[in-house]
Amino acid sequence: MKISEIRVTPVAFRDPPLLNAAGVHEPWALRTIVEVITDEGLSGLGETYGDLDHLQKVRQCAQALVGVDVHHTNEIYRRIDTLVGDVVSDLHGLTGVATKEKSVDRVFATFEVACLDIRGKAAGVPVVDLLGGRVRDAVPYSAYLFYKWAGHPGEPDDRFGAALDPEGIVEQARFLIDRYGFQSIKLKGGVYEPAQEVAAIRALAEAFPGVPLRLDPNASWTVETSIWVGKELDGILQYLEDPAVDIPSMAAVAANVPMKLATNMCVVTPAHLPPALEQGAIGVLLLDHHYWGGLTRSAQVAALCGTFGLELSMHSNSHLGISLAAMTHLAAATPNLTHACDTHTPWQDGQDVVAPGALRFADGAVPVPDGPGLGVELDRDALARMHEQYLACGITSRDDTGYMQRFEPAFSTRRPRW
Amino acid sequence: MKISEIRVTPVAFRDPPLLNAAGVHEPWALRTIVEVITDEGLSGLGETYGDLDHLQKVRQCAQALVGVDVHHTNEIYRRIDTLVGDVVSDLHGLTGVATKEKSVDRVFATFEVACLDIRGKAAGVPVVDLLGGRVRDAVPYSAYLFYKWAGHPGEPDDRFGAALDPEGIVEQARFLIDRYGFQSIKLKGGVYEPAQEVAAIRALAEAFPGVPLRLDPNASWTVETSIWVGKELDGILQYLEDPAVDIPSMAAVAANVPMKLATNMCVVTPAHLPPALEQGAIGVLLLDHHYWGGLTRSAQVAALCGTFGLELSMHSNSHLGISLAAMTHLAAATPNLTHACDTHTPWQDGQDVVAPGALRFADGAVPVPDGPGLGVELDRDALARMHEQYLACGITSRDDTGYMQRFEPAFSTRRPRW
Ligand SMILES: [Mg+2]
Ligand SMILES: [Mg+2]
Repeated sequence: MKISEIRVTPVAFRDPPLLNAAGVHEPWALRTIVEVITDEGLSGLGETYGDLDHLQKVRQCAQALVGVDVHHTNEIYRRIDTLVGDVVSDLHGLTGVATKEKSVDRVFATFEVACLDIRGKAAGVPVVDLLGGRVRDAVPYSAYLFYKWAGHPGEPDDRFGAALDPEGIVEQARFLIDRYGFQSIKLKGGVYEPAQEVAAIRALAEAFPGVPLRLDPNASWTVETSIWVGKELDGILQYLEDPAVDIPSMAAVAANVPMKLATNMCVVTPAHLPPALEQGAIGVLLLDHHYWGGLTRSAQVAALCGTFGLELSMHSNSHLGISLAAMTHLAAATPNLTHACDTHTPWQDGQDVVAPGALRFADGAVPVPDGPGLGVELDRDALARMHEQYLACGITSRDDTGYMQRFEPAFSTRRPRW
Repeated sequence: MKISEIRVTPVAFRDPPLLNAAGVHEPWALRTIVEVITDEGLSGLGETYGDLDHLQKVRQCAQALVGVDVHHTNEIYRRIDTLVGDVVSDLHGLTGVATKEKSVDRVFATFEVACLDIRGKAAGVPVVDLLGGRVRDAVPYSAYLFYKWAGHPGEPDDRFGAALDPEGIVEQARFLIDRYGFQSIKLKGGVYEPAQEVAAIRALAEAFPGVPLRLDPNASWTVETSIWVGKELDGILQYLEDPAVDIPSMAAVAANVPMKLATNMCVVTPAHLPPALEQGAIGVLLLDHHYWGGLTRSAQVAALCGTFGLELSMHSNSHLGISLAAMTHLAAATPNLTHACDTHTPWQDGQDVVAPGALRFADGAVPVPDGPGLGVELDRDALARMHEQYLACGITSRDDTGYMQRFEPAFSTRRPRW
């Protein structure tokens, strides 16, 4: 079953002004949608980053994959490895350091997911069954809270409203939990000074007793600040995510705080695992198939984490339904992925390139789609519309920092900030 | 595609008197052949150890797997894990320490291989394609040399002849290389005092210049003896396999010899990997899907080895063609399995449960079978004949030591011996 054509379509969708250590989300978020079509007429879907540099690599590699069998992922990887070459790109600073291997894995992942979608359709089984079968029928996600402005400057307020202090964060959590039933909460920090973020976590703990809580300042803190926060939130945080900037700093924090540290920044490619394990830098790895090289390689990393006693959760960037489906299949097949996963889905507020019905939240979890493959279908009207939005929006690469500096010219992303 | 029936058939085949640290191979070697049949009529093959204790577990688990979908290997693993319980069995002392996890993985592996055979047949692709596709068209194996008697006591000499000294070993190597084209050589040691085995390796180096050489005494040596051998064979051995008995001893040897150490004894289940890596005990892992939990889990272990810079080869016990096919598919799909694999195939001298034609050696390598699934078919007459042999031979568990002691009552397997 050979690849006969690959369609690569960048799309843009509305995104609220979510604050983070790098700045603030722009009014449009970008993704790239990949359709792999085979000589037997089956097609499969992948979704990846929309940044121009990455999009160009995906396009270039797509051409080079025509003629390859959809099972031959080793060959697909080899071709991409050759093409991506030594040009290492850092899409944005929130998913850790850039490496050659990560750049290759990031391009490869979207094609691998599409190939698994095709193989699942051909076999008449969901992708989860190509990964060992489900160990859970629905995958729990966390309420992913953000400090945010009421709306983009110059635009009307969005319906999520402002969240600029602990009260606003609690209100946002209640809004998301009421709508989605989330049973874990993650707060994106690194926005305000640590004491305010500690206060927000305390307010969440009081408002939602017993609900696991996490805080992720995206490496905004010194080791000292990280340790202070860790001690302040003893018994309150389930885990503390990326307080400090690199493996040695994380290890120094880990040795002095009572909770496990999690990361999607200092361990983002296989080469980071040995030093992180040796130094005891982390206790939880946030998997993300978009840069860990697709679902099969992510399952291999998950097995490695099981071998070394690392716990697992899952990282998310702004994404659409193809990614949510892929994340859900992977998580459903991964026995040791026991923490609720992150997702930005609520912030997309119903915008999607997949036809409605296949994906839904029940009690904060997404039931594994039943259909063959990923179990989602392209909504071609939506795809066309969102591609038009891409062409019109004027954004070609995510730039939270530049957007923030339009309103706060002195804004800096220096790390550590506090 | 659900499992509707599983047939479990123990078989016996003639085995030459191969010497090793545990004693000598008995006149009959045992294996268990597993046929998994689905409700859609497709069937798949697995092959595993024939020892009675293991056979009984395989039979018990086989009954418990009826009704499970062949994709649902997580569920298959869960059921086997429940059934195998805490009864840890040590089949024989040549594949390392026994653990609960290894016992489960060993039973699971044969069913997993059979399920992959079925899935490959259903998809019309070889098993290698379910593992990422081939990175090599043929898998190199090594000439696996043994000290051996001319024949079993009381029987005529076999056609391999005796090999009791360096000259006999060189002669044996020439015999196997002439017939199979092997381009690497492994000598099973731990039989004679180390100086003789060093002399045998030197004789091989002289007779076959440039051919990679390995020596495996199955943990017969002290740390001091191991270091002495390692230094003696500097520049001659490609790697030294299991000179000493456990991870700390191997680490002590590794720190003092010029070549990498390999193992299929001190690292035989995931729990052994972290201490072995931390202590620097090994440089090469000999994969064996029969106890590493099947092909997919072996691929995960291979990925872990890649991440940590461990090289890979492949271990072998006496086996038939189903195992050779499975080993070949796995090795063909594993990019970092760069050393020639071990196989006992020549010693089976044409005896097999698979129909002729699918498996062959060319220049010491086995071309990946082209057919769907494993690409091999049961020869039902041979299976029946070899099952009759099993019933008649009187052996129910491998016992190299007991057999040796019939002829050398003082024989002992104490480790270290030298
Ligand atoms: Mg994070
Ligand atoms: Mg060995």
